[in-house]
Amino acid sequence: MQYKIKDISLAEAGHAQLEWAEMHMPALMSIQREIEKNKPLSGVSIAAVLHITKETGVLAKTLKLAGAKVALAASNPLSTQDDVAAALVKYYGINVFAWKGETEEDYYENIKKLMEFKPEVVMDDGGDLHAYIHQNELFQNMAGGTEETTTGVIRLKAMEQEKVLKYPVIAVNNAFTKYLFDNRFGTGQSAIDGVLRATNILIAGKTCVVVGYGWVGRGIASRLRGLGGRVIVVEASPLRALEAIMEGFEVMSMREAAKIGDLFITATGNIRAISKDHIMEMKDGAILANAGHFNVEIDVEGLRSIATRRRTIRPFTEEHVLSDGRRIYLLADGRLVNLAAGEGHPSEVMDLSFSNQALSVLYIVKKKGTLEPKVYDVPTEIDERVARLKLEAMGIKIEELTKEQVEYSKQWKYGT
Amino acid sequence: MQYKIKDISLAEAGHAQLEWAEMHMPALMSIQREIEKNKPLSGVSIAAVLHITKETGVLAKTLKLAGAKVALAASNPLSTQDDVAAALVKYYGINVFAWKGETEEDYYENIKKLMEFKPEVVMDDGGDLHAYIHQNELFQNMAGGTEETTTGVIRLKAMEQEKVLKYPVIAVNNAFTKYLFDNRFGTGQSAIDGVLRATNILIAGKTCVVVGYGWVGRGIASRLRGLGGRVIVVEASPLRALEAIMEGFEVMSMREAAKIGDLFITATGNIRAISKDHIMEMKDGAILANAGHFNVEIDVEGLRSIATRRRTIRPFTEEHVLSDGRRIYLLADGRLVNLAAGEGHPSEVMDLSFSNQALSVLYIVKKKGTLEPKVYDVPTEIDERVARLKLEAMGIKIEELTKEQVEYSKQWKYGT
Amino acid sequence: MQYKIKDISLAEAGHAQLEWAEMHMPALMSIQREIEKNKPLSGVSIAAVLHITKETGVLAKTLKLAGAKVALAASNPLSTQDDVAAALVKYYGINVFAWKGETEEDYYENIKKLMEFKPEVVMDDGGDLHAYIHQNELFQNMAGGTEETTTGVIRLKAMEQEKVLKYPVIAVNNAFTKYLFDNRFGTGQSAIDGVLRATNILIAGKTCVVVGYGWVGRGIASRLRGLGGRVIVVEASPLRALEAIMEGFEVMSMREAAKIGDLFITATGNIRAISKDHIMEMKDGAILANAGHFNVEIDVEGLRSIATRRRTIRPFTEEHVLSDGRRIYLLADGRLVNLAAGEGHPSEVMDLSFSNQALSVLYIVKKKGTLEPKVYDVPTEIDERVARLKLEAMGIKIEELTKEQVEYSKQWKYGT
Amino acid sequence: MQYKIKDISLAEAGHAQLEWAEMHMPALMSIQREIEKNKPLSGVSIAAVLHITKETGVLAKTLKLAGAKVALAASNPLSTQDDVAAALVKYYGINVFAWKGETEEDYYENIKKLMEFKPEVVMDDGGDLHAYIHQNELFQNMAGGTEETTTGVIRLKAMEQEKVLKYPVIAVNNAFTKYLFDNRFGTGQSAIDGVLRATNILIAGKTCVVVGYGWVGRGIASRLRGLGGRVIVVEASPLRALEAIMEGFEVMSMREAAKIGDLFITATGNIRAISKDHIMEMKDGAILANAGHFNVEIDVEGLRSIATRRRTIRPFTEEHVLSDGRRIYLLADGRLVNLAAGEGHPSEVMDLSFSNQALSVLYIVKKKGTLEPKVYDVPTEIDERVARLKLEAMGIKIEELTKEQVEYSKQWKYGT
Repeated sequence: MQYKIKDISLAEAGHAQLEWAEMHMPALMSIQREIEKNKPLSGVSIAAVLHITKETGVLAKTLKLAGAKVALAASNPLSTQDDVAAALVKYYGINVFAWKGETEEDYYENIKKLMEFKPEVVMDDGGDLHAYIHQNELFQNMAGGTEETTTGVIRLKAMEQEKVLKYPVIAVNNAFTKYLFDNRFGTGQSAIDGVLRATNILIAGKTCVVVGYGWVGRGIASRLRGLGGRVIVVEASPLRALEAIMEGFEVMSMREAAKIGDLFITATGNIRAISKDHIMEMKDGAILANAGHFNVEIDVEGLRSIATRRRTIRPFTEEHVLSDGRRIYLLADGRLVNLAAGEGHPSEVMDLSFSNQALSVLYIVKKKGTLEPKVYDVPTEIDERVARLKLEAMGIKIEELTKEQVEYSKQWKYGT
Repeated sequence: MQYKIKDISLAEAGHAQLEWAEMHMPALMSIQREIEKNKPLSGVSIAAVLHITKETGVLAKTLKLAGAKVALAASNPLSTQDDVAAALVKYYGINVFAWKGETEEDYYENIKKLMEFKPEVVMDDGGDLHAYIHQNELFQNMAGGTEETTTGVIRLKAMEQEKVLKYPVIAVNNAFTKYLFDNRFGTGQSAIDGVLRATNILIAGKTCVVVGYGWVGRGIASRLRGLGGRVIVVEASPLRALEAIMEGFEVMSMREAAKIGDLFITATGNIRAISKDHIMEMKDGAILANAGHFNVEIDVEGLRSIATRRRTIRPFTEEHVLSDGRRIYLLADGRLVNLAAGEGHPSEVMDLSFSNQALSVLYIVKKKGTLEPKVYDVPTEIDERVARLKLEAMGIKIEELTKEQVEYSKQWKYGT
Repeated sequence: MQYKIKDISLAEAGHAQLEWAEMHMPALMSIQREIEKNKPLSGVSIAAVLHITKETGVLAKTLKLAGAKVALAASNPLSTQDDVAAALVKYYGINVFAWKGETEEDYYENIKKLMEFKPEVVMDDGGDLHAYIHQNELFQNMAGGTEETTTGVIRLKAMEQEKVLKYPVIAVNNAFTKYLFDNRFGTGQSAIDGVLRATNILIAGKTCVVVGYGWVGRGIASRLRGLGGRVIVVEASPLRALEAIMEGFEVMSMREAAKIGDLFITATGNIRAISKDHIMEMKDGAILANAGHFNVEIDVEGLRSIATRRRTIRPFTEEHVLSDGRRIYLLADGRLVNLAAGEGHPSEVMDLSFSNQALSVLYIVKKKGTLEPKVYDVPTEIDERVARLKLEAMGIKIEELTKEQVEYSKQWKYGT
Repeated sequence: MQYKIKDISLAEAGHAQLEWAEMHMPALMSIQREIEKNKPLSGVSIAAVLHITKETGVLAKTLKLAGAKVALAASNPLSTQDDVAAALVKYYGINVFAWKGETEEDYYENIKKLMEFKPEVVMDDGGDLHAYIHQNELFQNMAGGTEETTTGVIRLKAMEQEKVLKYPVIAVNNAFTKYLFDNRFGTGQSAIDGVLRATNILIAGKTCVVVGYGWVGRGIASRLRGLGGRVIVVEASPLRALEAIMEGFEVMSMREAAKIGDLFITATGNIRAISKDHIMEMKDGAILANAGHFNVEIDVEGLRSIATRRRTIRPFTEEHVLSDGRRIYLLADGRLVNLAAGEGHPSEVMDLSFSNQALSVLYIVKKKGTLEPKVYDVPTEIDERVARLKLEAMGIKIEELTKEQVEYSKQWKYGT
């Protein structure tokens, strides 16, 4: 076994974290209980670039218990929980190359390290691993891969269209039980949690600007409102903008919103959603946070270029003083605020995503050699199975269609 | 010109209704202003089976002003606004065959009547017109059609799959600016409005059961909660059930919900979502309403078979006394409560649907002879154009992507 | 028996209305069942100026069944339900002097008529009856009175302070089970219901301005938000304004709000909350409604003075065209929109108010001659009894304090 | 100067905390700017038992800058921020006797220490200081005091009624700008923040039981709903229970709620709101937190008596394993979860409370010797001044009444 982590002595604390996560990931645990018996992944080498959190730990452990050889690196330089990394190494024999506070060089070094395990299956969060494999032509042994994020799927689809994609990838992000839950409910809550841990501000009475109204943005907007904020949405798509209006939010351009916001959270998947020019318009005390995958949404360099001085006033809260004395607060260096300043998604949503991940890995292994090198949606039967496992675990009984109803839904000849 | 309506002398009242609708349909009005000049539908015969409301009136008028010959029948025996029908005949020369309170015989007679106009384009709401045309092989002259509802689209897709569909149909229902708005925001509000007009009950403090958690169901659930109701969702899809739970609703089977609900609203698109057996479990005073297209969701016959007597206690509110004295209230005979007991969708949402309808008709006419006999989604450029027209009319300025941002969203090689 | 009503032949329809109300007024019905046996009001003459609705009908019937002689007049020229008035006369022998559409002269004539019954107890809604009695010195025989509204209580307290009040009055409005429920939940829903019946507009996406953030205003604001509106609050009290902000609403001056609102609802209890100057700033299509007791909150005369023409475009919706072509819509002549354009409060909230009324009348009769001529709050035991009756009727079980807990809540010596 | 704190070297970090708080306490800062000039508290000795947080630091600094001699102790053994304590000592010469993790003995020792400063004014949070002074007859020199909490005010009112209160106390808790904001918005958000920091659970989809529906309880209930929880309210008052129902919450007895809750938060002000018997009914994984002042609301001893083992699984999260294997998680030892596991109220709400505190202290000093030994509400002019200062700082313009409107609101003779 190989590893490069912060401190192996943190393993016990990490183990308690894993237990806590397991308590809140009942769907994945029921999959784990099943595949632990059959070992359908015996001998399969799996490499994963994911946020190294306690939930990823439960996923890695699940794959390991099913027989796989597992190697992990971090998908974000700030998101690794060092105690969990230690527990995975010490108690479960997982090869981990990750620590909180990696440099960009470390980051790519660790990805490189993973590939030495000659994985048959790769799991990625953002698409950097897939990109690395393609750029370095390391896809010879590959059964296929998975991708966790919207951002990553967009990149992979671009590769598919350019006909450079070399192995099949299951877009876990596109599972209903992923994108309808993880992005909206997970990031919706945890991004705000990250902001509160960094700042301890009161949301009630604040003018909150949510930049981007995709699933992440609408989750954040809904929770900010639920905490008493006045919420303004900035969005470039007319369809989404209209939806935001109908849900009672104010919609305006970023330039207008910049002047009145107290708190700004970006979730666009695009660069410089908040630009230097926007920052120039902001009020004294404005707080900037990013909930999108990459740290490109807020123009951090632009902000720094106009600041006369800066200091960390609270952990993850950096004060920038502009030349006229206005103070602008940047959270977590513009990186994913829920991971950097908080603990990332609650285990309950990762339960859904990672149940899809686990079942998708099984599917790829089973189908090895039979799938075209394309981006695939998660098969509906996997998606629905995950939902059923979760509902059962929550003790919820849903309606069953009668035979008559099943028949009816197939008919078209009935009239008024 | 031909017509069969209730009373031509209602035309003036109907005209005021049309003016009121026009005030709240700014997107369609801007289309009207444009095509009134060019007359792109000169000489085209159009037949439509739609709810004959003031908004449909504005659509029919728009097509007429663009040069078309227009004939209308009702898509529901109870939904015709007789004054609007009169105004369309008297002031705009539209051939209307519809009145409130048609028999089932009348209903099909009127559909038959429409076909005498040898339409090139047909517009339908529910699929009965398309079914009639196919059953009677009247599709010779047809450039194509449109379909307004989920129910209709399901029927047409079944026809497409059975390879019996004979002309292209644009599924207006599938436009983002239709299904994301009309079903959720339109029916969400108007179904409750219909219930309140029929009953004047207080929603606050009531246990409200929403049966079906599609777009209609979630619109209704959200508005009932917004009025202070405790909302229970009944749903057969595990994915939707899980989503309802995450949005804070209780989820249970219909059998369990039947015992505790004060108000039940169905929106499943399926039959007997509320069955006789469910009704047998209900509390004294339970109120039943349907917000789905067809009057099959509540087992009305079943209810009547177990009632020892019944009477209309308020307009659209029928009291059924069960043998043990419990009273069950059925609204609007189990037909669409927002149309039967209320005025149907507010003009503002129909503005979106009918802008899609108008632009889809223009598209069909322009493409005549070039489209396969399939069910098509509304072209994205139409969909986005409708959203932009609406936003402009509301005075909302959305964000514009910079060149850099447009470029970025096409890239995949950028990393962390 | 004497009466002056619209049409006695409407009695049967009115009777069904009363039955419907009784179904939704379980607390008052349980009081009725009790006092019907003991007849504690035998021979007592009671005069009431109330909105003559089905719920008032149930209250009047309750007092009558308890032995009283009851005479009713309307507290608002537009709020009488003529069929209910007929049923009260025909089936219950109640002396009713009220019809929908009274002139101001009729209104005072009917109040005068009531006093011929030499009432011992008077019930009022707004304070006009109490004012009339004092101005005409008709208080000789009086045991006391009740007052239903905030407005009326303010007037009576002014009388108390000027030492001109001549008999004790119980401020039913001040009961927790009245003002915390009736104004907020009752008017909150029914004012919007009135607006929807008058206009059928879509609330979602509208900029809604709520003028006044007392209990009525906050009820309306909360429900408008629940229906998808963007809600702006206008308020003169800094305490209430701050509360509105913390609950996520925008707060601004009326002048600023006037420029951007689509829908305005007043609930200030004050005059010209919307003045002519404000109206001059409004957008084409703005809709004005009042939810306060008196029709003074919108400057109707001012609006008419600047309109070049006006017409009723829909029932209760009057279009005013300004000189520059902008159209302003006034609902229900600026009178209480929930009563004039809708059916007033749902029975469920009136159940609480009128249970307090009934128990307060019993209290006054029992205490005759022992109470100073002051304004009294509803005794707490009555207030709590009403809440318990309601909860029992709804099948809700609340927590019971243990002995230990009752003791603890009396202590102060326990420390950390 | 005297002090007893954890570590004076933490002062710099504490200073940054104070600066951050000052940024979010604009109302108190504007008071500070004013009284710093006039020094109206020159030479006055003030002792305060408050949570030693950054906000309390700003208050203490304000009093000091106004000329007072200030001594502080902690109102809760777990709530002291040691860095803030250090900064107050080092940079502002305030006598602080407080550290995180005091024993009960320390706690009373520190209170005793304060009294050596012979204070003329005492400020308390919970009533322990007032109780101590009275039990030890140390009230000779006293101009008066203030009390921050509901709990404390209840204790003081009991003392007033028993005629043992020896100096006037201003119930800061009863200021509108305190109890309508601090308890509801402050604890509403921060209690949930504390739960999330301790557990990182997902609120969406959880069954959350709020025990007690006073201002704290309703704040928590509203925010839990806003985060997607299904919220059940347990309440012993029929009036509050009915209000909770009308706001759409489920209401039931604690015994019933115990069986279905995932998360329980107490806010009753009473003992054993969650008893051992209730815990015996709970599901595996249930989480218990307290948001009430004292750690008596959850029967911690009872829980420990039935646990076969316990361990801290995460900071502030203690796992208790029952004999049948069920795991129950107690947060922060049942102490105030927002203070113990989080950072207490956001500065923004403390801005209101502490502006009232500062102005009340000025009032007491000014009125020394003229006030009876009673519990007083905050004078309305102070209350409204605080609200106006806050609104000004937020840039909000509220409506101004016209002369005509001021006149009208005094009148009672106007009629319909």
